[in-house]
Amino acid sequence: MNIPSSPIRKLAPYANAAKRDGVHVYHLNIGQPDIQTPVCALEAVRHIDRKVLEYSPSDGCPSLRRKLVSYYRRFGIEVSEDEILITTGGSEAVQLTFMTCLDQGDEVIIPEPFYANYRTFAMIAGATVKTVTTHIEEGFRLPSVEAIEAQITDRTKAIMVCNPNNPTGYAYTREEMLQLRDIVKKHNLFLFSDEVYREFIYNGEPYVSALHLDGIEENVVVIDSVSKRYSECGIRVGFIVTRNKAFRAGAMKFCQARLSPPLLGQIVAEASIDVPESYLKGVYDEYIERRNFLIEGLNRIPGVYSPMPNGAFYTVASLPVDDSEKFCIWCLNEFRHKGATVMMAPASGFYSDPALGRNQVRIAYVLKKEDLAKALECLEKALEQYPGRVC
Amino acid sequence: MNIPSSPIRKLAPYANAAKRDGVHVYHLNIGQPDIQTPVCALEAVRHIDRKVLEYSPSDGCPSLRRKLVSYYRRFGIEVSEDEILITTGGSEAVQLTFMTCLDQGDEVIIPEPFYANYRTFAMIAGATVKTVTTHIEEGFRLPSVEAIEAQITDRTKAIMVCNPNNPTGYAYTREEMLQLRDIVKKHNLFLFSDEVYREFIYNGEPYVSALHLDGIEENVVVIDSVSKRYSECGIRVGFIVTRNKAFRAGAMKFCQARLSPPLLGQIVAEASIDVPESYLKGVYDEYIERRNFLIEGLNRIPGVYSPMPNGAFYTVASLPVDDSEKFCIWCLNEFRHKGATVMMAPASGFYSDPALGRNQVRIAYVLKKEDLAKALECLEKALEQYPGRVC
Repeated sequence: MNIPSSPIRKLAPYANAAKRDGVHVYHLNIGQPDIQTPVCALEAVRHIDRKVLEYSPSDGCPSLRRKLVSYYRRFGIEVSEDEILITTGGSEAVQLTFMTCLDQGDEVIIPEPFYANYRTFAMIAGATVKTVTTHIEEGFRLPSVEAIEAQITDRTKAIMVCNPNNPTGYAYTREEMLQLRDIVKKHNLFLFSDEVYREFIYNGEPYVSALHLDGIEENVVVIDSVSKRYSECGIRVGFIVTRNKAFRAGAMKFCQARLSPPLLGQIVAEASIDVPESYLKGVYDEYIERRNFLIEGLNRIPGVYSPMPNGAFYTVASLPVDDSEKFCIWCLNEFRHKGATVMMAPASGFYSDPALGRNQVRIAYVLKKEDLAKALECLEKALEQYPGRVC
Repeated sequence: MNIPSSPIRKLAPYANAAKRDGVHVYHLNIGQPDIQTPVCALEAVRHIDRKVLEYSPSDGCPSLRRKLVSYYRRFGIEVSEDEILITTGGSEAVQLTFMTCLDQGDEVIIPEPFYANYRTFAMIAGATVKTVTTHIEEGFRLPSVEAIEAQITDRTKAIMVCNPNNPTGYAYTREEMLQLRDIVKKHNLFLFSDEVYREFIYNGEPYVSALHLDGIEENVVVIDSVSKRYSECGIRVGFIVTRNKAFRAGAMKFCQARLSPPLLGQIVAEASIDVPESYLKGVYDEYIERRNFLIEGLNRIPGVYSPMPNGAFYTVASLPVDDSEKFCIWCLNEFRHKGATVMMAPASGFYSDPALGRNQVRIAYVLKKEDLAKALECLEKALEQYPGRVC
């Protein structure tokens, strides 16, 4: 099966080569925060009191699923432990969801730019991603109902959103979520909602989960993960939450085929849910400060534009370059500023038509402000020197 | 996508119901050993000295891959760290291998009975499993070259073996491996070799890995895992080892799509490779003793037959019953002996034609001898009382 390379990771060989030459690389390409994992989570694994590191149940440890019930309740989401499946990260949650719901030739509609690996997971399921384009000059808001409905065919099985959005940082409004609900209900589709950045909404609006929407209880499948929330990307623990019993029975067969999600990660995740409110508040404040600093910095660079994202920790910015992939590779291969360079994810891979993102990059503000400042300085200097600059 | 239920785990709801009623269930259905994880492995995770549990590289931690080079050298297998990809357990190693090599409509030939989840992973890749049947009365040895070649079509891409075998416990001889080599070479196929039970060969013969075979270096892809070797099923760390560079480039794209294998598991796995020889010797001796005890016990029960397996920690036994799945469910639902019952995996799910395994079960000797004795007693009594007993 031939799949596209990940736009997020495919430049890794260039970055590794630069590092071997002693160059410092500011990683703005990947959502790997430098935020510390909660102490209570690290302590849980340090105090592990088991003699055998055995399989967990295929749908995850019951104690973790029980604790998640209380976690979701904090957001006004009432689910039972039976409505939660533990997965190997959000990645597996997406893959299992697609494999469970989609058959060969089916279609899932996703607003673009979209998290590029969704396409790979759809291909594995034999399905096709159809897109509705969102635009940088509109801040990447949801396209109109008409634009979405225009993409629906008799093979359409689902609409998928990532909210708050990776890669754009856009957080859907209540009105937009209600529009999605109406479309999903009218055409009897699934609504897959990737909500791993739930905690990171910066405009003060209350979070609207797909699980809050009335009247489409059987249609909603939420993808979730502890990775970003608690800075635990490496433990590989995610969740699928749905009230649809037939879906769960189908997904469970895939869970059983791969036997078990990671036990140690589940122990860490369970402890993390008890993290003090002050940790989450601290992380939130830190991201707001980074966001403001980054977006202002980007927009001060001549020819660069980024909207102000309301969520997650990414933005998609446009650059005055001929081709952002070429530019990103050039930064890694040829450009040095004070012994350093910057790594970003070319946005073309986040669109169905690469031309749409040709002058855009995804930037993750996962580094501390001092490092963001140096990365911005690198970017500014690089744009001055890049041979493929376009006014 | 509709897939079959796992024969290994699909009876779990019946077992859970029995447990809720206070019944003790002897789990012979799943390869979850009660053997202790090495102390050095548990200590590694207890002394974890990190502030962020970050993603590992998509192909795994370099330090683990380097250490695996020395591990394989102990078996006379010379590979470089670049020839190893770390996966989320052996399950993901199989899935990635299938997705990398097989396209829609391709075929992979597997001797049956075979580990049932292979079929699910093949279906995910859009491929089909073709089988060559092995027989209990022949100890499940490899079928003849002619029988294997009779299954080859223009859609055949690979032959897959599990050696030592799950579910039969059969360990392939050097002669059989050379036969496989010749077929693979003649027809230019991949040879997928699942070698997770490498340490568990009980007939004193040296282990023959697919990586030992001359002349098919580019054809061989080995699946591996620490799960059984160190009793670490829950950490979800496996490997793909291959000298085929194009394969690795293809598999790496899938690795990048799911971002990272579990970090904590990799820390445990790395420490485990340094386990004292005495640990592995102790585990080996324990399994030999359990095997001898179990097989002798099975063959003493009227109407039961099991060959003496030379490897892994499973056997496939035939029982005097109408339908082993019905019998296994009946044991969980209705049969009690001294407040306990026994759980086995019906073998029908390990065959392409369920009729072939209708009177067979897979039994894992993963419990200590006292428990095996009680489980055997349960089985004997259950067979006396089972209404569907034949002859």
